[in-house]
Amino acid sequence: MDYFSRQKNTNIRLTLPVVCFVWQIAMIILFGVFIRYDEESDAHWVETKAHDNITSDIENDFYFRYPSFQDVHVMIFVGFGFLMTFLKRYSFGAVGFNFLIASFGLQWALLMQGWFHSLDPQTGKIFIGIESLINADFCVAGCLIAYGAVLGKVSPVQLLVMTLFGVTLFAVEEYIILNLLHARDAGGSMVIHTFGGYYGLSISRVLYRPNLHQSKRMQGSVYHSDTFAMIGTLFLWMFWPSFNSAITDHGDGQHRAVINTYLGLASTVLTTVAISSLSQKTGKLDMVHIQNSTLAGGVALGTAAEFMISPYGALIVGFFCGIISTMGYIFISPFLEKTLKIQDTCGIHNLHAMPGVIGGIVGAITAAAASESVYGKQGLINTFDFTGDFKDRTVLTQGGYQAAGMCVSIVFGVVGGAIVGSILKLPIWGDPADQNCFDDEVYWEVREPGSIPPILEYNNHMIHKQQDLSESNFSVEHCES
Amino acid sequence: MDYFSRQKNTNIRLTLPVVCFVWQIAMIILFGVFIRYDEESDAHWVETKAHDNITSDIENDFYFRYPSFQDVHVMIFVGFGFLMTFLKRYSFGAVGFNFLIASFGLQWALLMQGWFHSLDPQTGKIFIGIESLINADFCVAGCLIAYGAVLGKVSPVQLLVMTLFGVTLFAVEEYIILNLLHARDAGGSMVIHTFGGYYGLSISRVLYRPNLHQSKRMQGSVYHSDTFAMIGTLFLWMFWPSFNSAITDHGDGQHRAVINTYLGLASTVLTTVAISSLSQKTGKLDMVHIQNSTLAGGVALGTAAEFMISPYGALIVGFFCGIISTMGYIFISPFLEKTLKIQDTCGIHNLHAMPGVIGGIVGAITAAAASESVYGKQGLINTFDFTGDFKDRTVLTQGGYQAAGMCVSIVFGVVGGAIVGSILKLPIWGDPADQNCFDDEVYWEVREPGSIPPILEYNNHMIHKQQDLSESNFSVEHCES
Amino acid sequence: MDYFSRQKNTNIRLTLPVVCFVWQIAMIILFGVFIRYDEESDAHWVETKAHDNITSDIENDFYFRYPSFQDVHVMIFVGFGFLMTFLKRYSFGAVGFNFLIASFGLQWALLMQGWFHSLDPQTGKIFIGIESLINADFCVAGCLIAYGAVLGKVSPVQLLVMTLFGVTLFAVEEYIILNLLHARDAGGSMVIHTFGGYYGLSISRVLYRPNLHQSKRMQGSVYHSDTFAMIGTLFLWMFWPSFNSAITDHGDGQHRAVINTYLGLASTVLTTVAISSLSQKTGKLDMVHIQNSTLAGGVALGTAAEFMISPYGALIVGFFCGIISTMGYIFISPFLEKTLKIQDTCGIHNLHAMPGVIGGIVGAITAAAASESVYGKQGLINTFDFTGDFKDRTVLTQGGYQAAGMCVSIVFGVVGGAIVGSILKLPIWGDPADQNCFDDEVYWEVREPGSIPPILEYNNHMIHKQQDLSESNFSVEHCES
Repeated sequence: MDYFSRQKNTNIRLTLPVVCFVWQIAMIILFGVFIRYDEESDAHWVETKAHDNITSDIENDFYFRYPSFQDVHVMIFVGFGFLMTFLKRYSFGAVGFNFLIASFGLQWALLMQGWFHSLDPQTGKIFIGIESLINADFCVAGCLIAYGAVLGKVSPVQLLVMTLFGVTLFAVEEYIILNLLHARDAGGSMVIHTFGGYYGLSISRVLYRPNLHQSKRMQGSVYHSDTFAMIGTLFLWMFWPSFNSAITDHGDGQHRAVINTYLGLASTVLTTVAISSLSQKTGKLDMVHIQNSTLAGGVALGTAAEFMISPYGALIVGFFCGIISTMGYIFISPFLEKTLKIQDTCGIHNLHAMPGVIGGIVGAITAAAASESVYGKQGLINTFDFTGDFKDRTVLTQGGYQAAGMCVSIVFGVVGGAIVGSILKLPIWGDPADQNCFDDEVYWEVREPGSIPPILEYNNHMIHKQQDLSESNFSVEHCES
Repeated sequence: MDYFSRQKNTNIRLTLPVVCFVWQIAMIILFGVFIRYDEESDAHWVETKAHDNITSDIENDFYFRYPSFQDVHVMIFVGFGFLMTFLKRYSFGAVGFNFLIASFGLQWALLMQGWFHSLDPQTGKIFIGIESLINADFCVAGCLIAYGAVLGKVSPVQLLVMTLFGVTLFAVEEYIILNLLHARDAGGSMVIHTFGGYYGLSISRVLYRPNLHQSKRMQGSVYHSDTFAMIGTLFLWMFWPSFNSAITDHGDGQHRAVINTYLGLASTVLTTVAISSLSQKTGKLDMVHIQNSTLAGGVALGTAAEFMISPYGALIVGFFCGIISTMGYIFISPFLEKTLKIQDTCGIHNLHAMPGVIGGIVGAITAAAASESVYGKQGLINTFDFTGDFKDRTVLTQGGYQAAGMCVSIVFGVVGGAIVGSILKLPIWGDPADQNCFDDEVYWEVREPGSIPPILEYNNHMIHKQQDLSESNFSVEHCES
Repeated sequence: MDYFSRQKNTNIRLTLPVVCFVWQIAMIILFGVFIRYDEESDAHWVETKAHDNITSDIENDFYFRYPSFQDVHVMIFVGFGFLMTFLKRYSFGAVGFNFLIASFGLQWALLMQGWFHSLDPQTGKIFIGIESLINADFCVAGCLIAYGAVLGKVSPVQLLVMTLFGVTLFAVEEYIILNLLHARDAGGSMVIHTFGGYYGLSISRVLYRPNLHQSKRMQGSVYHSDTFAMIGTLFLWMFWPSFNSAITDHGDGQHRAVINTYLGLASTVLTTVAISSLSQKTGKLDMVHIQNSTLAGGVALGTAAEFMISPYGALIVGFFCGIISTMGYIFISPFLEKTLKIQDTCGIHNLHAMPGVIGGIVGAITAAAASESVYGKQGLINTFDFTGDFKDRTVLTQGGYQAAGMCVSIVFGVVGGAIVGSILKLPIWGDPADQNCFDDEVYWEVREPGSIPPILEYNNHMIHKQQDLSESNFSVEHCES
C-alpha cells in the first residue's frame, strides 16, 4: 500500500471502526432513552384493542403497511445497491457501502424523525411501529441518492458522515414541509428526491476533482456489471408503486397511489427507449439510460400519486419524465461537469433532482386543481388532510404551500450539501487519490488480481505453472470433452 | 457497423423512436377517453364504503390482492427478463427488450381487456383497480412467453409489433374462453401459457432462418450468464403460487391455489433433476433443464390450482410435468427444429406450450370430477362460479367447456402467430442478419469489446475446432469497430 | 471424464435419478394417505366461516401470513442459494443443489411435522394451510444451513440423504422443544439455526478430508462470484424480519418481531464492518464478513424477537453478534479446521451455530425476566402461550425450559450429525475426489472451457501488455501488498 500513502492516506483502519463503534453505541443509548414500541406493536395491545373496539387483529396497521414496507426495504438495499454496481470494478463499494450507510441511517432516522414528528410530550418517548420503519427507510433513501453523485470518489467514513448530516437535514426539512407547511408528499418527490439529489450534487461540487481523468481506466462498465445494475433498476421500478403508496391513506389512498405509479413508470420506459435510440447514430440503445431514466416517472409521481390525477394524467407525467431524464444524461450531465464542475457519477441530477422538481410542480398544480366534484367532500378532506388547524385551507392555498415545500427542499439540499461538503474536504477521512477512484481495491480485499494488470498476471501465471502437470492436462482434456 | 450494413439494415433509429412515441401518445389519448379509477381506488370510496356497510378499510380489494400483484410483477420483469439472460452475449436484449415490451403491453392490455370485460355500458368507461393491473400483467406474460421463441433473432420493433397483436389476440381468446365458454382458468394454463406458447412457436416458424448456424458462436451460455438466468428461474418458481392465486376467490380460493402450486412445483424439481441426470453419460446435470423444466409444474396447475385437486393431486401433476418438459428439451426441441423448422431459442414449447396443454386437460378432468361432497354445495358454486346464466350448469358440462377453451387457445395461438409472423417478415423492421443473431452489439452500445479479444478468440476456435476463418476475422473486425 | 474415474467414481447417473424418482413417488403416496387441506383452505370454508361467525374473508389466516411466507420462501431459495455462490466455480452447485434439496425437504417436512404436530386423532389426517408451508420452509432451512458446511465436498445424492435425515431429526427436536418443553422459538434460533449449524459441522467433521488442499485452486472467490453472493446476503438480511415474525401471534406479536429483527440486523452491520476493517493491516473490508456476519443479528433474535425486549435490547443483541460472528471468521474457523478437523466451507459456525446459541440464551434470559407490568396480564399469557397444561407456569420456569430447549437442539445437531455423517462416509454416494472439490464440472455440464487452459491465458497477457506502464507498475505493488 506504500503507493497510496505516497499520494494519499486511504488507511481507514482507525477511523472506520471507531466511527462504527461509537455511533452504534450512541444509537443504543439514545434508543434506550427515547424509543419504545407503539400501541399496536406492544403486548398491551390486547387491552388497547378492546378499548378501541377493534374486532380483528387484521386491523392492526401492520397488515395495511407490511407488504409495502418489505418492498421499500428491497428498494433501499437491493435497488439502490445494485443500481450502482454498473462500474467495472466498484460493485463491492456500491452494494457494500450502500448496505453500511443505510443500516446506520435508518437507526438515526428513527430518532431524528421521532424527535420532530412523534415525540410524546407526556412521556418524552418516541413510539415506533411499522410506519416509522417505512419513514426511516425513506429518510435513508435521500442519503443513498446523494451517494450516487459521489460514488467511487469518497471513503466509507465520508459516507457515514454524509449520512449523519443528511438524515439530520432531512428530518428538519421534512418537518418544515409536511408539518409546518402541511404539504402532501407521500412518495417524497420533494422531501426525498429533490433534497437528496441537490444534497449530493452540492457535495460533489465541493469535492470537485480536476484530475479525475487519471482514473479513467476504471470508469464505465463491463458487460456483466451492466447486467448486475439491471437487478437494481428492475427492483426499484417494480416496487416503486409500493414506495409511493407505503404511507398514504388506508384503502383508496394506497390503492390509487399504486395505480398511478404503475402507469407512470410504464410510459416512462417507452419514451426513455425512444430518446436513447435517437441519441445514437444507428439507433442503438444505451444501458445507462435504460438503467436510470426508466425510473424517472416514479420519482415525479412521488407527490401526486395519491391525488386523483386520473390514469392518463399519470401516463403524461411519465411520458415527459422519460424524455427529460434521458436528455439529461445526453446533454445536461456533460454540461454540469464542464461548466459547473459537478462530477455526478450516477447522474442523480437526471434521475432524482430534475424529476423530483417536476414531481413537486405536478403536485402543486394538481393540488390547486382539486375539486369536491372529483374527490367528494370527505374524499378531499382525507386526501389533503384538511383537519385540525388546516380544516379551512382551500385547495388553492394548498397548491401554494406545495410549491413552497418544493423550494424548501431545494434550499436544504444545496445549502446543506455545501456545508457538509466542506466538512468532507478535511484531509482526515481517507478518501482515494484521483488515480484510484472507482477502484474496489482501495477499501476491499479483492482476491483475484482485479483489473488484470498484464505483467502481474504474467507472474501470477508463472505461479499457476507450478501446479502439477496432471492438472493442466486435466483442464485441456476438459475442453476436448 | 459497416460490416452489418453490408448484410442487413439493422438501423432502427427511425422506426423504434417513432413506434414508441406514437404508440405511447395513443395510449395517453385512449386512457383519457376510457380509463377511470374503480370504486375502491376512487376518493369517493369513503361514501361507497358507507353505502355498502364496509366497516374497515382492510376489506378494500387492494389488501386481498396487492401482495400477489407485487409477486406477479416481479415474475414479469425480473422472472421472464433474467430467465432469458442465459445466452453468452444477449443479456441486455433479454432484460431490456423484455422491460420495453412489458411496459407497453400492460397499457394496451388494460384497454383491450377493459373493452372486452369491464366496459361500463352507461358511462362507456373502463374502471380499473388492483385486479385490472394483475390481469394486465397476465396478458403481457403471454407475449413474453412468445418472445422466448424468437429471442435473439428479432429487432425491438418487431417485438413491439408482436406485443401489440399478441395482447389483442389475447384479449379476444380470453373473452371467448372465460366469458362465453365460462371456463375457469385463474392461473392461465390455457389463456396465458398455451396461447403464448403456440403464438411464439408459430411466429418463429414463419421467421425460420435456414442459415442460423452462422451465429453458432453466439449461441449457448457462459458460466455467469447461466448464473444470471437462475435469478429469473428462482423468482418465477418462488412466486408462481402468487401467480396462480392472484385472481382466485378471496379466502379459501387463494389459500388453496397457493398450496397446490407450491407442492406441484416442488415435485417438478425432483423429476426434472432425475431426467436431466439420466440424459448424460455420467449423470451430470444440464443447466438448461434446471432453469426451465423446474417451472413446468406451475404452468400445468394454472387451471386446476384453485380446484379441490388435493395436495397429492398437485404432486402428481408436477411429477409428470418435470419428466415431460425435460424430455422435451432432450428429444422434442431438436425434432421441431429439424423437421418442423421451428427454431425455439428458449424452448418455450417444453416450458409453456406442452405444460399449458396438460394444465388445460387436468383442469377439464378435475372440473368434470368435482362433486358437492368434496366442495360443499356453496363451495362448488363459488369455485366454478355457477351463478347468473350458468347457475344450472353441471360439472360435467363445465369439464366439456374447459376442454373447448383449451382448443380455442391453441387455435388462436397457431393461427394468430402465423398471421403476425408474416407481418413481421416484411423487410422493414430492422432484424439482424443470420450471422449477427444472439448478439447484443446489434442493438446496444456495448462498451467493452466482445468479451474475448480477437487473437484469443482465434485460439479459442482452434481448440474447439469448430469455426471457419471468416468468422475469426469477423470477430476481429468486431473489436476494431 | 476418465480423469475423474481414475480417482473416484463421481458417476451419479444411476443413484441420483433413482433417489429422486423413488422418494418423489413415496411422497405422492404418503401425501395421498395423510395430507388434506385445512379448514381455511378447503372449499367448505364458506360453511365453517358462517359457523365461526367470521364476517370477512380477510380474516382467513392466509392474509395474516402470506406476505411473510413469500419472503421466507425467497430466503430459502434465493437467499441461501445465492449466499453460497461466492466460490469461483461452484455457483451451479450452490444454487442448483440448494434448489433440489429444498424442494424435496419441504415435502418431507410437511409429513414429518404433520405427524408430530398436527395429526388429527379422529381422521388420522394432517390438515395443512399457509402456516404449515412456512414451517416446512423453516425445517428446510435447517438442512440448507448444514449444506453450507459441506458445500463443494459432497454429491447431490449425499445432500438428499443429509436432508432426509436432517428433516427427520428436525421434526423430533422441534417436537421436544416446542411441544414437550413448551419453549418459545418463533424464529428458530434454537430449533433451526443451532440444530442446523451443529448438524452440518458434525457431518463435516466425520467427512474430514486431510488432502482438501489439493483443490486449493478452486477455493476462494472471484469478483463476480462475490457480487452474486451479495444477492443472497441482502435477500436474507431484508426478509429476516419476515422470517422471525412469520409464525408469531397475529397483531402485535408479528408487529413487534418485525421491529426487533429490523433493528438488530441494522446494528450488526456496523459492528461487522468495524471488526472486518480492524482485521486488515490497512483497514480494508473483507467480503466474507460482509456477506455472512451481517446476518448474525437476525439469527440471534430468532427466539426473542416476539418478546418485549424493547428496541434498544434488539440493538444490543445485534451489536455483539456482529462482533462475535466476524471474530469467528478471523480466529475460530481456522482453529476449528486445524485442531478439530472441521472444514466449514461457508463458516456456518460463525453465522448460525454461535449466533443461534446466543439467541437461545437471550431468549431464556428475556423470558425469565418477563413481567406483567411490561407485557400486561393477557399479553404475557399470549406471548408465552401460558394456556392449557402450561397455564400455571411462571416466567422463571419458562426461562429454564428455554435453556433446556437450547441444549436439546445442540445434542440433536451433534449426535445426529455424527450418525448421518458416518452413513455419508459409505463409498457409494459418488462424492468428488479431493482435487475436484468445489468444481462444478464434476456434476454439471459446463459449456465454456472453465478454468481457462494455460496457453490461452498466456496469450491473454500478451494482448494486455499494450497497456501503459505506470498503470501496470501501480497494480503490481497492489498485489505485493
